[in-house]
Amino acid sequence: MRVGVLVSGSGSNLQAILDAAAASALGGATVAVVISNRPGVKAIERAGAAGVEALVIDHRAFASRDDFERALVEALAARQVEWVALAGFMRLLGARFLGAFSGRVVNIHPSLLPAFPGVHAQAQALAHGVKVAGCTVHFVDEGTDTGPIIAQAAVPVRDDDDEDALSARILAEEHRLYPRVLRWLAEGRVVREGRRVMIAG
Amino acid sequence: MRVGVLVSGSGSNLQAILDAAAASALGGATVAVVISNRPGVKAIERAGAAGVEALVIDHRAFASRDDFERALVEALAARQVEWVALAGFMRLLGARFLGAFSGRVVNIHPSLLPAFPGVHAQAQALAHGVKVAGCTVHFVDEGTDTGPIIAQAAVPVRDDDDEDALSARILAEEHRLYPRVLRWLAEGRVVREGRRVMIAG
Repeated sequence: MRVGVLVSGSGSNLQAILDAAAASALGGATVAVVISNRPGVKAIERAGAAGVEALVIDHRAFASRDDFERALVEALAARQVEWVALAGFMRLLGARFLGAFSGRVVNIHPSLLPAFPGVHAQAQALAHGVKVAGCTVHFVDEGTDTGPIIAQAAVPVRDDDDEDALSARILAEEHRLYPRVLRWLAEGRVVREGRRVMIAG
Repeated sequence: MRVGVLVSGSGSNLQAILDAAAASALGGATVAVVISNRPGVKAIERAGAAGVEALVIDHRAFASRDDFERALVEALAARQVEWVALAGFMRLLGARFLGAFSGRVVNIHPSLLPAFPGVHAQAQALAHGVKVAGCTVHFVDEGTDTGPIIAQAAVPVRDDDDEDALSARILAEEHRLYPRVLRWLAEGRVVREGRRVMIAG
């Protein structure tokens, strides 16, 4: 299973995926290419260090989202990418992209969706005062973090948490959860029935 | 701390509270009275078996919610009740009641709020396809399950769960969580700052 990873920044989840691949913990999944919509980000370095091709496709170079997405699709298709994993990719994807990779785009989000979609999920959780937070791997649809949920992990919120402390606790779970889901996908075990997603076997 | 418990049905959370009181696990909290808005429910029997006074105040006997709530407040005040715990009480409370017990009404809800407020929370969670569910003890305000969160407990959702199986798993956590929160309240350890609630000590 050839996976393309889309990033916009540091790419710590990308690193967890690359580490899992190096440890043969991704089943039959391999990272075929990393694409960043922003130049100069650390994720590019991480790909290089792992011997994975990295591209920058800067959304600002395109007249429309459709044109940007066409370029993404062409770059991924040229590398025989079958599945796309978003890892801190900060652009909403539209019909052009999601049509090309229908049902084969996944994302990780730092909340227990459907609570706290969108940006600054950890700060939203703290402001709301929840006592359990977490992360979610989900299929991507055209909404903001609204697609069917594949897996979630919970962490406690502590009374003295600030955004950094809570984010770090959630991130540790993200780094475990995302490679595990990619392995399930590579093993063909992820079964989707409407909004409910089952892991076979 | 004299607690009044409001119920509408079976009262399994009431039973957990009564059991905790019998085991001296509620700190200084005692159940002073149980009030049901519906006659003939099992919660009334549970109170009787524990030697706790039980009343029926049927909302249908009152011309308005305000009149119903005035009767509730009078019954509770006559028994020197200081805190009110809702345990499957299926009426929304308004300004009359919440004004009388300002900041001293708590509820338990079978979801990880803010996800899935309102009725059939477990079925909502299954339909949405979440992988982590749970329960929440929160202060009551005039919204539906919107008040500041005191405590939450998480449970996994399993691929073969139906509403009954998930509800039972959540209920086991409810029965642990609610008495614990009442003990914290009796010990004066629950500190509220806006929407954030801390447990001191």
